[in-house]
Amino acid sequence: MTTVASRAELYAEVQQFYADQMQRLDNRDIPGYAQTFTEEAEFEHTPGRPPARTRAGIIADLVAFHKRFEADPMQRRHWFGMTDLRPQDDGSIIATSYCLVVKIRPGRAPEINPSCVVHDVLVRLDGALLTRSRRVSHD
Amino acid sequence: MTTVASRAELYAEVQQFYADQMQRLDNRDIPGYAQTFTEEAEFEHTPGRPPARTRAGIIADLVAFHKRFEADPMQRRHWFGMTDLRPQDDGSIIATSYCLVVKIRPGRAPEINPSCVVHDVLVRLDGALLTRSRRVSHD
Amino acid sequence: MTTVASRAELYAEVQQFYADQMQRLDNRDIPGYAQTFTEEAEFEHTPGRPPARTRAGIIADLVAFHKRFEADPMQRRHWFGMTDLRPQDDGSIIATSYCLVVKIRPGRAPEINPSCVVHDVLVRLDGALLTRSRRVSHD
Repeated sequence: MTTVASRAELYAEVQQFYADQMQRLDNRDIPGYAQTFTEEAEFEHTPGRPPARTRAGIIADLVAFHKRFEADPMQRRHWFGMTDLRPQDDGSIIATSYCLVVKIRPGRAPEINPSCVVHDVLVRLDGALLTRSRRVSHD
Repeated sequence: MTTVASRAELYAEVQQFYADQMQRLDNRDIPGYAQTFTEEAEFEHTPGRPPARTRAGIIADLVAFHKRFEADPMQRRHWFGMTDLRPQDDGSIIATSYCLVVKIRPGRAPEINPSCVVHDVLVRLDGALLTRSRRVSHD
Repeated sequence: MTTVASRAELYAEVQQFYADQMQRLDNRDIPGYAQTFTEEAEFEHTPGRPPARTRAGIIADLVAFHKRFEADPMQRRHWFGMTDLRPQDDGSIIATSYCLVVKIRPGRAPEINPSCVVHDVLVRLDGALLTRSRRVSHD
């Protein structure tokens, strides 16, 4: 059962979870990022690219995907916001967030691209939140 | 009386409220958006345009306002942030937030325009938050 | 000791603190901004510029720094997001946030520049949060 208090707790907890999760990715800690997903998670981040499955699969997919950034001295910052949480009866949480990717290159103004909507299913395992599935749609 | 705990609860609750409210607007669910205002609410969103009043008035105003977007394949995303809450003695809440409107058109980088400050008075009715008045000032 | 509940409370409290703190700065209330730091705080906001120390020092530094904006009809809006909180054993809190500075000038689209990471140490004094040290790194 969710009360106003427990929903408020959950909201802050999810924000902390996303901050930690996405700072890992922006710091290019791909294994650390994968640890924020469940072992059998599914992650679809780019339209037309098949979803990655399992933590090992997410790592392999992101290592391959990040190769395109190797020759590009770019810092990425993923901003999540406007998160809408829908706790489900089975204990999972449907979380729908806006996401802006800020790209910063030396000597240039930050570029904001793309704008996305992140469709997550979050679950709790041993007390901690994890992403069970993530589907990113691009505006 | 507000305690640290109840203020924290309120903060999360307002964020969830805004996420749901503004996702409705960005999904062009104008009647759903109007439902997040009180029956007699006042909504002033554009300088020089008189405020809309009542839910029916808000719907009529937004339907008219959105006509300008009809021929424009644009997705809008309203981001609220830096929300400052001031609970009042009468139970209402003065909420002052920054707002960025992200506009996305096919094949183009997202445009962020305008930057606004949203001045809200929120009230609680039957346990749920509603906007009683909203005044948007443009930077 | 921190529980999920107290961590959630803290998260919302920090967001409210930042909203109030940065709205003061954006409203050019420099003394009010300095009041959100401890008396002996250290604030390093620009690479290559030595950190300001003490509230009086922060005021003097910001008054000098803001002179560059005097002839520029610009509104700044500091957005904090993706805040990661690490409560420490001594009661302080290490807070790492993304920050975007939105600059708005008449008749022009908002410019977002720079993108930063804000490294804060927050402490509680007489029940209220204050910034004990702030180091801003620019992307």
